[in-house]
Amino acid sequence: MEVVPAALARLIHDFERLPGIGKKTATRLALHILRRPEAEAQGMASDLAELHAAIRLCDTCFAFSESNPCLICSDSGRDGQVICVVEGPGDLMAIEKTGVFRGVYHILHGVLSPMDGIGPAEIKVDALLARVKKGGVREVLLATSSTVPGEATAAYLVECLKTLVTVSRLACGIPLGMDIKYADEHTLARSIEARMIRK
Amino acid sequence: MEVVPAALARLIHDFERLPGIGKKTATRLALHILRRPEAEAQGMASDLAELHAAIRLCDTCFAFSESNPCLICSDSGRDGQVICVVEGPGDLMAIEKTGVFRGVYHILHGVLSPMDGIGPAEIKVDALLARVKKGGVREVLLATSSTVPGEATAAYLVECLKTLVTVSRLACGIPLGMDIKYADEHTLARSIEARMIRK
Repeated sequence: MEVVPAALARLIHDFERLPGIGKKTATRLALHILRRPEAEAQGMASDLAELHAAIRLCDTCFAFSESNPCLICSDSGRDGQVICVVEGPGDLMAIEKTGVFRGVYHILHGVLSPMDGIGPAEIKVDALLARVKKGGVREVLLATSSTVPGEATAAYLVECLKTLVTVSRLACGIPLGMDIKYADEHTLARSIEARMIRK
Repeated sequence: MEVVPAALARLIHDFERLPGIGKKTATRLALHILRRPEAEAQGMASDLAELHAAIRLCDTCFAFSESNPCLICSDSGRDGQVICVVEGPGDLMAIEKTGVFRGVYHILHGVLSPMDGIGPAEIKVDALLARVKKGGVREVLLATSSTVPGEATAAYLVECLKTLVTVSRLACGIPLGMDIKYADEHTLARSIEARMIRK
């Protein structure tokens, strides 16, 4: 017999569809919401209902934004001559949190993955080339992940862009605070090959 | 500068309020929803909005239910003479999944915790005593957790109920499939004290 009330089962199913959330966690979250005041559930419901309508992609950098151009593209304090290329919106947020980057962004919304049928046409590569060709760009910083598809995407973009503009890539090496003996061998090898001369 | 659009930030905050979900997971979940079709967000929104109105507590056992009495209390195939006492609705779901228990339930909606000001009046103890005193109950199975507050609640209920009805408690011991040498010492000690004679 099904002892979970249908209205609760529907919400559990909604949570289960989210990445990294299994049946047990979904049940725990739904029961938590049921035990909390109804106003909280109603608040989250309206936030969900309004999400897609409120947010669009910036026509220039393809960041999620409520305005177009987005706040970064329209900020005269940012250096529009330096474009940081990232895979997704979460990467942009992570870089902004460092406070170190003062240029603008270009969100690819994916990485090249020929096995999954994702080529340059499936991600925002053409738009990036068009931005660079339009001129006024001094440097493109490739900030895709240091995973196999991330590196492949960066390598592809280097080929496309190197004749047009200065292309840079995030440094790869030992994370800050890491004990050398616990670093994985590939990272350690890379940090030796890319060693920096101190004067 | 705040680079997260306000509508997205609101949903991230909603997720952050759920138990066990931090800022990073909340951001990942909200971005996932934003990238999926709007219909999914709208579906989850209406499920959330309807949740509290659809579900009430069964007047008999205090389970979450869309009907009153709930499906279990109103099922003539269940043995109404055996009441299983649990802390919360999630425990009921876990026991139902075993398919072994054919009696009915009583949900306490909490455990005794004097330090937090939770005494018998704050959980559904009086209603349980009233159910038992009304007669027709053969056994009360105490299925509170084997944590300190769960055991204390069970001990309190034993005192209240033992003169009225047969009171039982879930067996405590080595989990199935567990290697003895990895069992914690308290569980192992309990399993020795509560050893069962095989004939």
